[in-house]
Amino acid sequence: MIHRVLASELAAHVGETVQVSGWLHRRRELKHVTFLILRDRSGLTQAVVPGTTGTTGGPGGPGGPTQDIPEETVLSFTGVVTANPQAPGGVELVAPSSGPEIEVLSSLAATPPLDVYRPTVTASLPTILDHAPVALRHPQLNAPFQITAASVAGFRGALDALGFTEIHTPKIVGSATESGANVFTLDWFGRPAYLAQSPQFFKQMMVGVFERVYETGPVFRAEPSDTARHLAQYTSLDAELGFITDHRDVMAVVREALARMVEAVGERAAAAVEVLGVRLPKVPEKIPEIHFSEAMAMLGLDEPDLSPADERTLSEWALREYHSEFLFVTGYPMVKRPFYTHGEPGRPRYSNSFDLLFRGLELITGGQRLHRYEDYVAALAARGESTEAYEGYLSAFQHGMPPHGGFALGLERWTMRLTEADNVRRSALFPRDLHRLAP
Amino acid sequence: MIHRVLASELAAHVGETVQVSGWLHRRRELKHVTFLILRDRSGLTQAVVPGTTGTTGGPGGPGGPTQDIPEETVLSFTGVVTANPQAPGGVELVAPSSGPEIEVLSSLAATPPLDVYRPTVTASLPTILDHAPVALRHPQLNAPFQITAASVAGFRGALDALGFTEIHTPKIVGSATESGANVFTLDWFGRPAYLAQSPQFFKQMMVGVFERVYETGPVFRAEPSDTARHLAQYTSLDAELGFITDHRDVMAVVREALARMVEAVGERAAAAVEVLGVRLPKVPEKIPEIHFSEAMAMLGLDEPDLSPADERTLSEWALREYHSEFLFVTGYPMVKRPFYTHGEPGRPRYSNSFDLLFRGLELITGGQRLHRYEDYVAALAARGESTEAYEGYLSAFQHGMPPHGGFALGLERWTMRLTEADNVRRSALFPRDLHRLAP
Repeated sequence: MIHRVLASELAAHVGETVQVSGWLHRRRELKHVTFLILRDRSGLTQAVVPGTTGTTGGPGGPGGPTQDIPEETVLSFTGVVTANPQAPGGVELVAPSSGPEIEVLSSLAATPPLDVYRPTVTASLPTILDHAPVALRHPQLNAPFQITAASVAGFRGALDALGFTEIHTPKIVGSATESGANVFTLDWFGRPAYLAQSPQFFKQMMVGVFERVYETGPVFRAEPSDTARHLAQYTSLDAELGFITDHRDVMAVVREALARMVEAVGERAAAAVEVLGVRLPKVPEKIPEIHFSEAMAMLGLDEPDLSPADERTLSEWALREYHSEFLFVTGYPMVKRPFYTHGEPGRPRYSNSFDLLFRGLELITGGQRLHRYEDYVAALAARGESTEAYEGYLSAFQHGMPPHGGFALGLERWTMRLTEADNVRRSALFPRDLHRLAP
Repeated sequence: MIHRVLASELAAHVGETVQVSGWLHRRRELKHVTFLILRDRSGLTQAVVPGTTGTTGGPGGPGGPTQDIPEETVLSFTGVVTANPQAPGGVELVAPSSGPEIEVLSSLAATPPLDVYRPTVTASLPTILDHAPVALRHPQLNAPFQITAASVAGFRGALDALGFTEIHTPKIVGSATESGANVFTLDWFGRPAYLAQSPQFFKQMMVGVFERVYETGPVFRAEPSDTARHLAQYTSLDAELGFITDHRDVMAVVREALARMVEAVGERAAAAVEVLGVRLPKVPEKIPEIHFSEAMAMLGLDEPDLSPADERTLSEWALREYHSEFLFVTGYPMVKRPFYTHGEPGRPRYSNSFDLLFRGLELITGGQRLHRYEDYVAALAARGESTEAYEGYLSAFQHGMPPHGGFALGLERWTMRLTEADNVRRSALFPRDLHRLAP
């Protein structure tokens, strides 16, 4: 029996008869020869079939013609691996003299909604999303997801090495406490419940158990606005660690995670990087930072807020000044941060928190949290909230919690900026937003 | 400045003055000496403080007494690492002659709901779950989650090595097609939507893109029954692969995943394995299998169904016959399987599917799926369903899909059986079920 060989492995089998299985990516018929370009998970293979027309035998059978086999048909092709410097990868598959041995594994029931074989994609984003199961077969359209998979592996690798424990927390919560707005309501055995907007409370509580935890999972935001960078479900890479001095210890972990993510993309998704022409950023040993108050002064702003345009300006400044595509903006005003945020010692208006800008876009939010029970009681009272709704969460702080902090990174946004895409939906397999619930 | 050293690292610092930070696990006062057992993420350390009472200084300050510091207080202790064969790990921390240097990082605002320091846990499961943020600090109660984290890492490592791509799929779907029952309904911007019961459809569609995919994420079942092995949210380890011959190719991947999971638990969660006295199973090179029809005959059954008791009997048989704690039951009747199941060639009553039993419990379900569009149309018609509700899903099959199959493993159940726990809720940090939405 002849076993399947991947396209990428062919060069090691010159002279052997092997079977390649995949999709018929493209059929090119010349006068006396047909080239079948086959696509499998490792890449493309060129198969050569002499005598395109007029050969005998049924479609797909031994010796049969190939002209009735449309692109995207799934087939196995058995041939001899032959060196050919002109072929992609330096080798091609040549049909034996008895005729091509083709086994059709699955034929088409409809014409594909877009031509997967074309070098570039001209279809509009809505068309791509409507037809994702087929459109994502295009190497340019699935490359972002290879990059995503490598990035997550890098994230986990970095945190595993730093002694973090991976956790899995509830996505369904009994109260919409963390942020009342933009929350999805569901029917929980006849009672209302809510989809978790983040694992924030859970990861903090688990610092009391494991000290250092991370989670890579879905979060849900009922975003009523339709922008190029918001999704209603996205993948959040969350980390939280105890026994920190302040937010700078968290920023050091962010730096390690980013460095390993970029490294993993280079190692594990090299083909996707090449397909998209991705420029991998250099993660500086120490990512530059600017305090919010300094950023405001530099930008000549009064309002304590940074617009997307301001974030781009700051990113350009960091690139100029520090040759860094990453920039920490620290010390965001307390009024802009959630109640669990730790203030800046000596400057209570500001916080021990940060955002990380990457190529002009806010990618990560993080900081030091309160860790003393009495500070939580005071923080909630200052916002006019009672402690009752936070009972389980606060019980962790009643029983001894170390100084801690953490961060969250939006995975689809990361891939979006890394691939310099125009829309975050290009880095979600099946995006969910205000309008889209299918496929 | 003296840096923090973990309990597990102390042996490498004998003679040095170091700082250990963690929770006061236990205070033991003898007449002329107090032992403080400190707990950090790496384990326990014994700190020795001469002269328990009557010393001067405030609580927590240098030279202060320790008797006012209750268990679970978070503190840093600075002392000299001293070899002592009697101490856990062969070393202990001795307070300098000037008195103990203790910095309290966080004191208690309430008495803990259970004694974390006691060797065994006597609290009932409901008490443990109600007080999870504190209860999980107990080494016996958090050990399952160290095992879970290691298991998932092993699963991903196995599949990464086999050329799988990790994916992230929607948890919110527009129709409750896969299984109409036990589905949670939510309000999606004014329209009804549903929580995904599995990534089944998505992972199959992505076989058309990446050939081999996996996902480790939450799934949701509105289980109206309250059993020791059902959760309303659990973590599903899902895999799907193309270009298979039949379900046996899937079973081979299951075997690799299980072997690597057990290996990873041994390597990465050795302390947890010891705390719980976990017996790590041997994963045979080839896991034994029995066809459903043979299992029925052996058990003397008529009804085409296996009860939990039958599964236990079969597991015992496999242990006796093959010395294996794992058993594949193959060929489940088609009527018991979803519409996308591939039939058994020549015996259309049975399917190319399997369950994996582990120590008497169904742990994994998997099999070969249909891959031809016309087979889906026929399968849905036979069940009296129209193809309209499955439009996006079926479009993948209209455009060329290879023979494929996959499996799903319930992570919490895996840990439950591995640790031989009495309830799956002991392997969910914050379980969600018919009654429980908090903490």
